[in-house]
Amino acid sequence: MFDRGLLIRTGVDGLYGRSGAFESVVEALDRLVSRIGAADGAEALRFPPGMARSSFERSGYLKGFPHLAGTVHSFCGNEADHARLLACLDAGEDWTAKQAATDIVLTPAACYPLYPVAAARGRLPEDGLLFDLQSYCFRHEPSLEPTRMQLFRMREYVRMGTPEQVLAFRELWLQRGNTMMSDLGLPLAIDPANDPFFGRAGKMLANNQRAQALKFELNVPVNSEDKPTACLSFNYHQDHFGTTWGIQQADGSVAHTACVGFGLERITLALLRHHGLDLDAWPATVRAQLFG
Amino acid sequence: MFDRGLLIRTGVDGLYGRSGAFESVVEALDRLVSRIGAADGAEALRFPPGMARSSFERSGYLKGFPHLAGTVHSFCGNEADHARLLACLDAGEDWTAKQAATDIVLTPAACYPLYPVAAARGRLPEDGLLFDLQSYCFRHEPSLEPTRMQLFRMREYVRMGTPEQVLAFRELWLQRGNTMMSDLGLPLAIDPANDPFFGRAGKMLANNQRAQALKFELNVPVNSEDKPTACLSFNYHQDHFGTTWGIQQADGSVAHTACVGFGLERITLALLRHHGLDLDAWPATVRAQLFG
Repeated sequence: MFDRGLLIRTGVDGLYGRSGAFESVVEALDRLVSRIGAADGAEALRFPPGMARSSFERSGYLKGFPHLAGTVHSFCGNEADHARLLACLDAGEDWTAKQAATDIVLTPAACYPLYPVAAARGRLPEDGLLFDLQSYCFRHEPSLEPTRMQLFRMREYVRMGTPEQVLAFRELWLQRGNTMMSDLGLPLAIDPANDPFFGRAGKMLANNQRAQALKFELNVPVNSEDKPTACLSFNYHQDHFGTTWGIQQADGSVAHTACVGFGLERITLALLRHHGLDLDAWPATVRAQLFG
Repeated sequence: MFDRGLLIRTGVDGLYGRSGAFESVVEALDRLVSRIGAADGAEALRFPPGMARSSFERSGYLKGFPHLAGTVHSFCGNEADHARLLACLDAGEDWTAKQAATDIVLTPAACYPLYPVAAARGRLPEDGLLFDLQSYCFRHEPSLEPTRMQLFRMREYVRMGTPEQVLAFRELWLQRGNTMMSDLGLPLAIDPANDPFFGRAGKMLANNQRAQALKFELNVPVNSEDKPTACLSFNYHQDHFGTTWGIQQADGSVAHTACVGFGLERITLALLRHHGLDLDAWPATVRAQLFG
């Protein structure tokens, strides 16, 4: 992967450059997901890789995943402060202590900036709403496994509405995701899963999530057969985001939400693992799906 | 723009969501630039919106632009620290002071992660090298002008080689950029420019940059006629990055570099300003360039 230049090391684990060939697969997957979902008429929105800190704070992310979040800090000093910063830098000392938090936090999942925007529109229509999102996301989990990047792209569809509407959406995408990945020639299993909640209290949250079957992941062996890699995830949030953001159904009750997320780099890595590092030598059926 | 939903407010100045229509223009511009440069055979590389802090420190960015940089910080504490963080958050107190700097800094310009990668490849070939880049970039300059975003996309071509090679590249793109923007029906002027260096010492750097004609910008009136917006920039770095990173020409002398940068959101905003907010009503010649 690195020797062939598909990924490029930067000196930081989990932070890599991508070659043109790698990107062509990411873009093809993005288009494939669009084609599969096209008939649903989702509203496309694209947010940058950072979101408003005030929204992030309200989202509840810090309760579950404080260790994964990335806040953006900046220098706010005068010229004397600048001279001291440069002196620290020259001396190899820590120059970052004086950086102050800005109003921006890196986006932890593509859908996080969406909820306040949806809430601001007022009550949902009877049919609920469906959104199409994609952005670079950040998670602070340096790792040597290329499948665990600190900055990666997540494509998502998010459904808001009644419990029945959002569960039907999740069921539909469980089937579509299964078909999509099978058609790409990837061995897969769909398994119950949980988010990586922080600490001992987090263990309980994770157990609840599994017991209630709120999260499923579509796993493909990439780094190893024993620990396959979650390439898609299917999440029923119940009324968590609806309550947090005050999103209401048409009848005024709290909206439920669900999302399906596609790890674009992870699916790309799965394809490279199973079909080889030379894209031109991939099976014709797979190439037709992606580049047809 | 905001009323029509082309851009979506997030509560932070300079941080906006993009509608599907807005994105379709950004993507069309990206493709247009690719078509114009296709014959040159540039090597495409795509870096995420963050770069290695060690590379950022070495780049010299903090000398010129400490106020624009964004460092990424994370929580590195234990469960007791987490409880204190949540207590601060609940009390509306500052919870960010305990965040520690990670190894990642937000990318300030698309080409910054490239130089160490190019240097690691050894001496340039006789013809030099040409790279094609695009990424989200961060600059901490909150502003009410939609043309001055904190997170925006920059497309770039970067040339490395002899002074003659890189100056010829810049001249070529000055012409191509002029033609491209004229063909898009935009009124424009190409003007000498300088980077927004920090402080009083920065004033001198800016004056030198202008006196030596190192930077030109292609300006289009967007927010106002008096202060047009730089949509493209053409930069001759002399041996700055070659010396900083030890990039050598084929004969062992220090490489010179130049880049052309396209502000994809800014060009999109210029098109919306001059051709209207309804993309379907844009002049047929412009639509043919972008969506043809």
